[in-house]
Amino acid sequence: MKKLQEHTLERLCQQVMKRICVEMEASGRHVHVTKAQAQQLFGHDLTPCRELSQPGQYLAHERVTIIGPKGKFENVAVLGPARKEAQVEISLSDGRVLGIDPPVRLSGSVKDTPGITIRGEKGEIAIECGVIAAQRHIHMTPEDAQRFGVADKQVVRLETYTERPLVFGDVVVRVSPDFQTSVHLDFDEANACGFKQGDLGRILS
Amino acid sequence: MKKLQEHTLERLCQQVMKRICVEMEASGRHVHVTKAQAQQLFGHDLTPCRELSQPGQYLAHERVTIIGPKGKFENVAVLGPARKEAQVEISLSDGRVLGIDPPVRLSGSVKDTPGITIRGEKGEIAIECGVIAAQRHIHMTPEDAQRFGVADKQVVRLETYTERPLVFGDVVVRVSPDFQTSVHLDFDEANACGFKQGDLGRILS
Repeated sequence: MKKLQEHTLERLCQQVMKRICVEMEASGRHVHVTKAQAQQLFGHDLTPCRELSQPGQYLAHERVTIIGPKGKFENVAVLGPARKEAQVEISLSDGRVLGIDPPVRLSGSVKDTPGITIRGEKGEIAIECGVIAAQRHIHMTPEDAQRFGVADKQVVRLETYTERPLVFGDVVVRVSPDFQTSVHLDFDEANACGFKQGDLGRILS
Repeated sequence: MKKLQEHTLERLCQQVMKRICVEMEASGRHVHVTKAQAQQLFGHDLTPCRELSQPGQYLAHERVTIIGPKGKFENVAVLGPARKEAQVEISLSDGRVLGIDPPVRLSGSVKDTPGITIRGEKGEIAIECGVIAAQRHIHMTPEDAQRFGVADKQVVRLETYTERPLVFGDVVVRVSPDFQTSVHLDFDEANACGFKQGDLGRILS
């Protein structure tokens, strides 16, 4: 009986935590390409390998090498579906290896960003812009936005319940019924706070 | 006359900032070795190349390769003077490349930490422990500790005035008359806050 109660309390506690906190995810370096670029790189459209947390988004079977003036990364993830514009999301640490200094930008904001070479199984392309370090952000459903009292494009602070706790500033909230609520960090940020899968964060303002 | 005043104001402003803030530094991966290990690796003692911010500490001319089960880094900095025990300080990102999961520890606390292979010009050694991710910390003079109202080993929060502002938790203050006051971050942390040389931080509590 005692054990059952403890189990119930633990579950209740978890539910409460999920109400006041948001789940976090660490995104590794990855590439978005257009339908035409997928043809050039792989000779066919992107093929889904695994669903991602955001509905409709997937990790593709296809992989690429990204090549900068000072270094390269092989076996880099490609995310689908195809987009209207290519985008390569790397961390500032990655930038150092590649010899590229990416600006911190929201996804889709690629004007005046550096270019890079992308190599696939069947071909290679050089994009003139598109390399960014993703600004930390929270994908959020309209229901959760209302619950947390935040609006689309609002900038908030996020306290992390992690091994190396910190409070991230400049976290952009993005609200859409197409989203699932989740904080997206890059690996520099994930490592700086000692993030482990399942760790939660709390919106401060 | 107006220009002179502006210049004076700017200098005053800088002086005030330095009074309420602390300077920050990003430490790349580096290695400390014993005198005997320096002999094994290089055939001679460490030779100073450049002084570091902490008095008496220097970057050595000697460089090493550090080799883990999954990867290696070449041309890694060795810091002098020689220590009583070897220590290899890497970021969690570096750990991923090497295939080593370093605990977050203060310098000198190497009990039950992973080992690694270190290769120098003249020889190679395998250390049984000593690989850590350095806990973020502030070296501080006793005068500054009094001014900021903090004590040796106190854990504080540090707000960064950087491109990607955040508040680091779990920052350990270390006070010694041998120190110069300076925050030490690893590259994950430096990149997560968008640190650039000369950026300042402020102790919050």
